[in-house]
Amino acid sequence: MSFLDHIKTPTLLLDEQKCLDNIRRMADKARRNNLIFRPHFKSHQSAAIGEWYREEGVTAITVSSVEMAGYFADAGWNDITIAFPVNLLELNDIERLAGKIHLNLLVNFPDIIPVLDNKMTNPVGIFIEIDTGYHRSGLTLENINLIETIINGCKQSHKLDFKGFLSHFGESYQASNPDEIEKIFYHGVRELQQIKRSLHPGQAGLISVGDTPTCSVADDFQGVDEIRPGNYLFYDVMQLEIGACATDQIALCLAAPVVDLYPARNEVVVYAGAIHLSKERLRRNGEEIFGLVVRLTNEGWTKPLEGCSVTQLSQEHGVLQLDPDTLNSLKPGSLIGILPVHACLTADSMKKYMTIQGKPVSMFTGI
Amino acid sequence: MSFLDHIKTPTLLLDEQKCLDNIRRMADKARRNNLIFRPHFKSHQSAAIGEWYREEGVTAITVSSVEMAGYFADAGWNDITIAFPVNLLELNDIERLAGKIHLNLLVNFPDIIPVLDNKMTNPVGIFIEIDTGYHRSGLTLENINLIETIINGCKQSHKLDFKGFLSHFGESYQASNPDEIEKIFYHGVRELQQIKRSLHPGQAGLISVGDTPTCSVADDFQGVDEIRPGNYLFYDVMQLEIGACATDQIALCLAAPVVDLYPARNEVVVYAGAIHLSKERLRRNGEEIFGLVVRLTNEGWTKPLEGCSVTQLSQEHGVLQLDPDTLNSLKPGSLIGILPVHACLTADSMKKYMTIQGKPVSMFTGI
Repeated sequence: MSFLDHIKTPTLLLDEQKCLDNIRRMADKARRNNLIFRPHFKSHQSAAIGEWYREEGVTAITVSSVEMAGYFADAGWNDITIAFPVNLLELNDIERLAGKIHLNLLVNFPDIIPVLDNKMTNPVGIFIEIDTGYHRSGLTLENINLIETIINGCKQSHKLDFKGFLSHFGESYQASNPDEIEKIFYHGVRELQQIKRSLHPGQAGLISVGDTPTCSVADDFQGVDEIRPGNYLFYDVMQLEIGACATDQIALCLAAPVVDLYPARNEVVVYAGAIHLSKERLRRNGEEIFGLVVRLTNEGWTKPLEGCSVTQLSQEHGVLQLDPDTLNSLKPGSLIGILPVHACLTADSMKKYMTIQGKPVSMFTGI
Repeated sequence: MSFLDHIKTPTLLLDEQKCLDNIRRMADKARRNNLIFRPHFKSHQSAAIGEWYREEGVTAITVSSVEMAGYFADAGWNDITIAFPVNLLELNDIERLAGKIHLNLLVNFPDIIPVLDNKMTNPVGIFIEIDTGYHRSGLTLENINLIETIINGCKQSHKLDFKGFLSHFGESYQASNPDEIEKIFYHGVRELQQIKRSLHPGQAGLISVGDTPTCSVADDFQGVDEIRPGNYLFYDVMQLEIGACATDQIALCLAAPVVDLYPARNEVVVYAGAIHLSKERLRRNGEEIFGLVVRLTNEGWTKPLEGCSVTQLSQEHGVLQLDPDTLNSLKPGSLIGILPVHACLTADSMKKYMTIQGKPVSMFTGI
């Protein structure tokens, strides 16, 4: 019996071997470059998948919320960076967690330092986020005074241990090709070095960077101490499109039941909508798409089918544009596979996985 | 103590009174027009909220999946239409459900009729979906032969009871104003009538229509037997934008902790990202937005703040563009409100609510 025989509703498939290969490739790169490897676990949010990293010697991880840090602390991870600006409303939970594990926080706003110093009884590490071009969160060279205020605040505290600078080169997700991704990386690292040089010697700490595109593409990590990629575990259509991965590195696929066929317009309707895939999209050949289409096999799935994509999503409906041969091979009740545009959001939407060996894999649900 | 004092993380707020008003207004419209009122429960997915409809005499509901039908059947609803094409992989679950409640299914593909007739031991109602312009799923006047084949298949079965035609005028969500919404409605109803007239007398059944924009705007329901709107319970920025609701009818708001402030670019970063709001977006004044911004008060929330919106979303981060006054009134740890672009997807992402009286309201999680 194949894993396919167990599927009745939209099911998030995981190719465990591809995941292990993706983990190993990045861990090797970190080792070769003498980098601390602190993978981001927000992409998978699963204690079971977390165990796969231990075989590569990973002992430190990154998460994006206090709740997620608590979940992984319970799963035995004791060195966690919450790579999201401190939420002061969760100070009690942060304090409790800091009593259990080694916790690093992100502080971009000087006023937070005295609040933390006052509240914490246990030591915490402090990173400052540096914005080198993504313009989401973080300080820049223009804010060097704020940066110094935060660092000095940490130095004066017995509980706040300044660790260094953390950056997410998120603009790399909008790149068109590996060259652009590399440029973003080297530009970012240069900016981080410039900030380091602007400080008194001994004031600066580690340089931690983290997005999947640049960590996948870059080779020269000089000036970097730590990497925190997450998505590379799965990769997805967005990473494929910008040249950050190869087709056969994509380790996540949504199995979708076909429920309706419209041969006249080369479309089928599947049970797989916005609540399964998420509404993350990208433009490809001038068209907006929500995923690529693959055939499911007993061994996993094929390469993306030429000219086939997810063109429309509503709550539970997905509309696939297909070539006539593929369409004619399907009927209501068939299963077809969809490679998501953004694996992390699809995983978060689905809240559980099934490996292509048919094994269920649970994740943090936060409910 | 206010409900606001309980909030530490992104929290989906519900104004129960506005919901009750929205339910009553639509129920009144249905009564005035002699319509069966079969509201869509996929928007809220909550047994507790379902009870609010009973006070308006609602006894029949719509859902969008077999699992959701099972959830509401367990909550005491015994007349349910699954307004999603039959998923043959769930036939066992459908059969089990049909033994407990009165169940209506959607069939757009003639080959499904003999499969259902063979499988079912309990009677089920059958609707055919008619596509009058949305081009997602459903048959058209050009498919009149397929329509007749399905109807005749039902007539020959002792278990399949043909109920009529079901339509979702989903293109109304893309309208620019109430006039366009009305045009879509009357066009759709005309097409449905035309299909009815093309059949032998006695073959056609009920006409059931369902989207929130047209049900909110239209006044003349001649030729329609049943309405199935869902989103109108909450409304949202999309409905506001196309003129299907007023600002003070929006009954759902995401409370978001402020975590970072960037006065130089009039932006703040909140803990409220794609996994909370969903990535549903719309263009407003030439800009892509993911929500509008309101102030939270002890009584709920204000009108949207002029010139303020959610301009960027990643997994947990939301970036808000604000006016300087609003920005200066905030600090890390403040709460601010976001009206979602698409309430149904936000509700599905959040998996629970809190009323502005501080009462938790649970929903179907499907996990």
